[in-house]
Amino acid sequence: MKFINFDNDPSLLPDEFFMKEALKEAHIALRLDEVPIGALVVSNGRVIGRGHNLTEQLNDVTAHAEMQAFTAAANFLGAKYLKDCTLYVTIEPCVMCAGASYWTQIGRIVFGAYDKQRGFTQLKQRITHPKTEIIGGIQEIECGNLVQEFFRRKRNKS
Amino acid sequence: MKFINFDNDPSLLPDEFFMKEALKEAHIALRLDEVPIGALVVSNGRVIGRGHNLTEQLNDVTAHAEMQAFTAAANFLGAKYLKDCTLYVTIEPCVMCAGASYWTQIGRIVFGAYDKQRGFTQLKQRITHPKTEIIGGIQEIECGNLVQEFFRRKRNKS
Repeated sequence: MKFINFDNDPSLLPDEFFMKEALKEAHIALRLDEVPIGALVVSNGRVIGRGHNLTEQLNDVTAHAEMQAFTAAANFLGAKYLKDCTLYVTIEPCVMCAGASYWTQIGRIVFGAYDKQRGFTQLKQRITHPKTEIIGGIQEIECGNLVQEFFRRKRNKS
Repeated sequence: MKFINFDNDPSLLPDEFFMKEALKEAHIALRLDEVPIGALVVSNGRVIGRGHNLTEQLNDVTAHAEMQAFTAAANFLGAKYLKDCTLYVTIEPCVMCAGASYWTQIGRIVFGAYDKQRGFTQLKQRITHPKTEIIGGIQEIECGNLVQEFFRRKRNKS
């Protein structure tokens, strides 16, 4: 067994590590009674932007986790483009967020659970940047269950 | 000839009137050396949200005119949805902004010049809300020329 010392080279941290961090953001949203979705932007093994869904708090249907993580990362870098960065998000981005990722030219998008209704991979045409690598299904069950449980509770309350 | 008194019923104001207002926003962007695109959200003949492209000023590639007009309108209304509103925007929305309009459930989108490269109507599948009416080509030449002239000058400088 090969031991990897992540402390020495944080860029070696696996996608699962950062998805767990994105899930922490989703849990913050949950405590605010928001649809529990969280996102991170990571550059060279460092988290440079975080976000969680705030559509209710901000009364703004565009306040998705990814949009906030993109803006935070650009602020951190002082640069507009996120070419060498990875977006981690617990649920597959919607068309708006995938469209935003095009403009950021982000290097990778890693998402948890697929969204069969509003996920951008439902489109037949590519809307992300040609250079963006897409990876879906990382910690899919945990990420998906969090949202499904949220909506189940909402239905039972009403 | 029928005389329409717009003062008595501002909801009768034509699309051209509001596109001229959106062009004023585009000119504000131009003065800031931003790609000159402007947007308004109008409800019952009243402007309830304005925005112009601020991607350079805010160092944020998602800071499109439409995104800001949506957020401003939702703030004004204190409501998340813009069902009875119209978005006026000088250039055809991109995929991100059209994706955002889905979440707002906006009633109408009226745009000026078509964007053959990044405009959302280039996609074969509908990404706007099923109830959103789309009208393109209002004051197309003036809206388009403003952006073309901006890029022509940029090219000549470099």
